[in-house]
Amino acid sequence: MQIRILATGGTFDKEYNELTGELFFKETHIGDMLRLGRCHLEIEVETIMMIDSLQMTDADRDRILRRCNEAREDRIVITHGTDTMEQTGAVLGPAITGKVVVLTGAMVPYVFGSSDGMFNLGTALGFVQTLGPGVYVAMNGRCFHWDEVRKNRELGVFERVT
Amino acid sequence: MQIRILATGGTFDKEYNELTGELFFKETHIGDMLRLGRCHLEIEVETIMMIDSLQMTDADRDRILRRCNEAREDRIVITHGTDTMEQTGAVLGPAITGKVVVLTGAMVPYVFGSSDGMFNLGTALGFVQTLGPGVYVAMNGRCFHWDEVRKNRELGVFERVT
Amino acid sequence: MQIRILATGGTFDKEYNELTGELFFKETHIGDMLRLGRCHLEIEVETIMMIDSLQMTDADRDRILRRCNEAREDRIVITHGTDTMEQTGAVLGPAITGKVVVLTGAMVPYVFGSSDGMFNLGTALGFVQTLGPGVYVAMNGRCFHWDEVRKNRELGVFERVT
Amino acid sequence: MQIRILATGGTFDKEYNELTGELFFKETHIGDMLRLGRCHLEIEVETIMMIDSLQMTDADRDRILRRCNEAREDRIVITHGTDTMEQTGAVLGPAITGKVVVLTGAMVPYVFGSSDGMFNLGTALGFVQTLGPGVYVAMNGRCFHWDEVRKNRELGVFERVT
Repeated sequence: MQIRILATGGTFDKEYNELTGELFFKETHIGDMLRLGRCHLEIEVETIMMIDSLQMTDADRDRILRRCNEAREDRIVITHGTDTMEQTGAVLGPAITGKVVVLTGAMVPYVFGSSDGMFNLGTALGFVQTLGPGVYVAMNGRCFHWDEVRKNRELGVFERVT
Repeated sequence: MQIRILATGGTFDKEYNELTGELFFKETHIGDMLRLGRCHLEIEVETIMMIDSLQMTDADRDRILRRCNEAREDRIVITHGTDTMEQTGAVLGPAITGKVVVLTGAMVPYVFGSSDGMFNLGTALGFVQTLGPGVYVAMNGRCFHWDEVRKNRELGVFERVT
Repeated sequence: MQIRILATGGTFDKEYNELTGELFFKETHIGDMLRLGRCHLEIEVETIMMIDSLQMTDADRDRILRRCNEAREDRIVITHGTDTMEQTGAVLGPAITGKVVVLTGAMVPYVFGSSDGMFNLGTALGFVQTLGPGVYVAMNGRCFHWDEVRKNRELGVFERVT
Repeated sequence: MQIRILATGGTFDKEYNELTGELFFKETHIGDMLRLGRCHLEIEVETIMMIDSLQMTDADRDRILRRCNEAREDRIVITHGTDTMEQTGAVLGPAITGKVVVLTGAMVPYVFGSSDGMFNLGTALGFVQTLGPGVYVAMNGRCFHWDEVRKNRELGVFERVT
């Protein structure tokens, strides 16, 4: 079973710039995370962009959609900022057929020690191997269909909407 | 969806005793790990035993089996030492019906920083929510049916046997 | 030998707000750091303020000076943002006599894992126990007299100026 | 000011072997630790041996003594297992003149996350730059003359003996 991970940035991959005290992006940490998890799946990691999801444009979402459709793999995990994961889900959901796509992210950068990133990446890889075709969001240990999820910004938790 | 986690110990939960320089067990860290993962699943954590899986007896395995069958939940994750995970799988596999049971563990203790525990717990929780009834082992990002897996001790990696 | 640590904030004590993605202050981590260092010195920790040193006003510096002079201890470590450590040193230096005062800080927040905070706190406590009266800055393993140090902002390193 | 660090092993530098579940030595982490501390002192790191201090023989202690005397630096930090630090101090103490030698170590391996190593290395480097000639032990934030210290094994704390 072959899996592609499309990295788009988000809190997941933020770094701390010790000269300016600001958060920024350098490269994705997904390779490091898979090594730390002693992951032995056949995974191709591809960085599409490295941005905060609040900066993500329609053109960016089109590019993500295109890469999902072009990928030779049927099982795709997308790492993504949590703030607009549901918008990207709404672009991918109606436009992808016959593939399993799981969006995931983190509330705290991987490099900060107290990150939820390793856990979320684990759940996303669990879901992507077992679910049927569709576009999903994996956060807080749970898996949501793209059209039934929203981020509760006060609590920082993803919840089901009906 | 309700999930029960049965903690049995294993590397997952080992601590470092700074007075003796030896590894030992105190309490399970699964609660901490679920908090760190911002997990919002309905999970009941139950410590059955807190031992190295090389010390696990037939009576211990019977107890694990009994707790699986007694649990009101149909979806169960068992944290377990990696050295005899396949033996426990072989006890549970033929004896449990109608439940999804996923065994997982870690190569490095959770408290050591470089642990694969968070990732493995994530994959196990992903698998347990989506797979059909059966007894499985979740390690290295992969999921194995209980009767097709073994730990390669030279590499420290779980692999499929046929 | 009794030591007082005056906490003023700075990168040392910054936290990551996972709801907003911004850095902020809650409480000082110095107590945690001393426990992690298994420190058995007689230390009193006092939080004077919890701010970024770029926000520090003349009134704030007067307050720090007053607390140094009022303290019953002759040996004082001040944790401080690195950006204006030299300005605070210039206020304290000429105005404190008969006490050993060591300013220290961190380039990366303590909670981020890759912090220099534990190391800097260690050097500062080493210096404060052994140096003669004066006001010093302890950063990068080195100790500078207050009137001969500046932060090189391009490199993020403290250096001697003459 | 030039400083030499002589690495002899000890808990400081222990690693976890995930295949056997045992602790072992590979290489010293002092270089990594100095980088993490953003240390800009002129330091030469030399590994003399990489052993548990309970295994240390008289010949080993002679070798440490010889390297202290041969070193061109007058300021030397020795990283050492905590169990026999006082014995090594008793060999070096009467035999070294005109140099500042500070022994330090850790209760928890550096790689385990909750280590006191960074703090202890910081204090040792603070002491070695400021103390007069002599042989000292730096642990728990404190500095002891070699002939007045012992490790309290029940508490895991170094204390003054008279």
